[in-house]
Amino acid sequence: MAVTMHDVAQRAGVSIKTVSNVVNGYPYIRPATRERVEAAIAELGYRVNVSARNLRTRRTGLVTLAVPELSLPYFAQLADAVMSAADAAGWTVLIEQTSASRERETEVLSGRRRHLTDGLIFSPLALGPDDIDLFTVDFPLVVLGERVFGAPADHVTMNNVAAAKAATLHLASLGRRRIAVVGAHAGQEVGSAALRTEGYRQGLAEAGLPYDPALVVEAGPWHRSTGAEAMARLLDAGVEVDAVFALNDALALGALHALHAHRVDVPGEVALMGFDDVDDARFAVPALSSVDPGRDQIAQTAVDLVLQRIGASGDPAPFRRVVPDSRIVGRESTGEDGSVVGVQPGGTELVAADLTVA
Amino acid sequence: MAVTMHDVAQRAGVSIKTVSNVVNGYPYIRPATRERVEAAIAELGYRVNVSARNLRTRRTGLVTLAVPELSLPYFAQLADAVMSAADAAGWTVLIEQTSASRERETEVLSGRRRHLTDGLIFSPLALGPDDIDLFTVDFPLVVLGERVFGAPADHVTMNNVAAAKAATLHLASLGRRRIAVVGAHAGQEVGSAALRTEGYRQGLAEAGLPYDPALVVEAGPWHRSTGAEAMARLLDAGVEVDAVFALNDALALGALHALHAHRVDVPGEVALMGFDDVDDARFAVPALSSVDPGRDQIAQTAVDLVLQRIGASGDPAPFRRVVPDSRIVGRESTGEDGSVVGVQPGGTELVAADLTVA
Repeated sequence: MAVTMHDVAQRAGVSIKTVSNVVNGYPYIRPATRERVEAAIAELGYRVNVSARNLRTRRTGLVTLAVPELSLPYFAQLADAVMSAADAAGWTVLIEQTSASRERETEVLSGRRRHLTDGLIFSPLALGPDDIDLFTVDFPLVVLGERVFGAPADHVTMNNVAAAKAATLHLASLGRRRIAVVGAHAGQEVGSAALRTEGYRQGLAEAGLPYDPALVVEAGPWHRSTGAEAMARLLDAGVEVDAVFALNDALALGALHALHAHRVDVPGEVALMGFDDVDDARFAVPALSSVDPGRDQIAQTAVDLVLQRIGASGDPAPFRRVVPDSRIVGRESTGEDGSVVGVQPGGTELVAADLTVA
Repeated sequence: MAVTMHDVAQRAGVSIKTVSNVVNGYPYIRPATRERVEAAIAELGYRVNVSARNLRTRRTGLVTLAVPELSLPYFAQLADAVMSAADAAGWTVLIEQTSASRERETEVLSGRRRHLTDGLIFSPLALGPDDIDLFTVDFPLVVLGERVFGAPADHVTMNNVAAAKAATLHLASLGRRRIAVVGAHAGQEVGSAALRTEGYRQGLAEAGLPYDPALVVEAGPWHRSTGAEAMARLLDAGVEVDAVFALNDALALGALHALHAHRVDVPGEVALMGFDDVDDARFAVPALSSVDPGRDQIAQTAVDLVLQRIGASGDPAPFRRVVPDSRIVGRESTGEDGSVVGVQPGGTELVAADLTVA
């Protein structure tokens, strides 16, 4: 079992960040602390990741992409986009699927396999804010998604709240008054479900529509099957509804199937909007309106950031948080023609590297 | 650039098979030939793949899966199934996407990255029968698909001809007489398109229906977009048609979209059948009838075979060719209720390892 930065921190009685600062050559560390860390490194035989350190000589030309589920079209298409972007830069991507298991996600970060490639692009789904220490690592890392904010790593995320608010407002602008949301996760305060449900609430409020808990439909994992079940539950309960905002496209496509099975006309009786704008959306019957979160830009940015870290020398650059522009695409399922009906601008934020001294 | 088995063969003036036989310790090789090969190995500094040779000491616990396109649901779901099967056996899968490029597929086999993992499961799409020499490799290899038959490797394939024939006969049994096929590749004699089109012809013949070239619709890559275009071409040409057999589900889902756009009722006017039975098929509107080629069994068998090769010692076992059972699943798009309406039995064939002496 390889010695990790965490073992060194424990032995030296310091934080992982301090070990990271010593290993990465930060200047502002007390000599006594530095000596303690260096002694622990020597005692434990800790070896800094060679691919990250010996920049010119030991490159593998490979980057790892770790995603929860390739059978979800969003992640399959994201993987495709990451590979295209890496390929254009002469790099190859190896993909790991974590199946949203805590154990697999921890393993991805633990470094046991990190010598295989030069950097990691990681979209966690099981780990959350309490696991932020695991994200202090000694190799180039780019975090994707909405589970962990503020880790000492570059981060590419989505315009979740603003885009979900815009989607809800768009449904209201079409005259819909009973807008359900499918895919809520009750009690969860982090992740895409919480953020997009918050956007939905803000959209209702801005449109002057009441928030009705009967219109908030839970779903477990965001698959077609759970979307179909959630939609059928709502219809079977006899709740009045004239629009559905599904929190991802898989849920929306399942909901569409359930609406069809219940002989509910889309968009005549119920307008439907998804989120992700996967390739399948365009070919659904009727074609699905959706939020395009900027998947290709997410992929390109993640590759750019990880390659910049791999190629960097000298003092580490500050970490960046990048949010691409998102767009509302109105297709048949909201009675529209496929054009972009709204843009939510993103942006880039610099997050200073943590130079806290021990 | 690492020295390959091909370099050794060229230097020694023998076939790659002979080098492979020497390296793998086959007994029936002339001493003079063995010496020539061993001299070439020494001169060139050729190193046998350590993960394949030092079985007990050097295992990585990793297997590579190389597929053409993760954005095609079939491959994304196959990858998911391969990972589940490997995971149950305590192994991890790294995925490479080749984008069906000859260069990437050749690189996958060349061994440059093969030391990263202990074995390879490979679904080629660009390489074909003329490239069979590339498949003589010094690491555990399982080939998937219909591009390359007879390589010195275990092979898991589909019941293509029998299943396509059964699908066509099933459409005929529902009273359809003008059955189009979408996704043909004119002039190609290898691969899924050729085999499934052959099954379509056999099905027509057995049903006593004429083969009409006007009903054979070409498509390039098998995506939703190409399926929609091909279907639109057929409809715009005014060809009489009452059923469509699409050679994969992505084509079928695209065709469904085009039928909907042309206001053609499915299955009232046109019955529709796909191939692959991807998860999306069940949730299409209307739900798509399809051929289930045994994806989970393909994944499980591929993992079993590659792990058996990795764990093997002594004389190599004969290579196996495995074909899972396939099934016709009749759903709404053929006016049925989702039950299995036909099974085509598969089987396992032993292919003796080639012991030809030089």
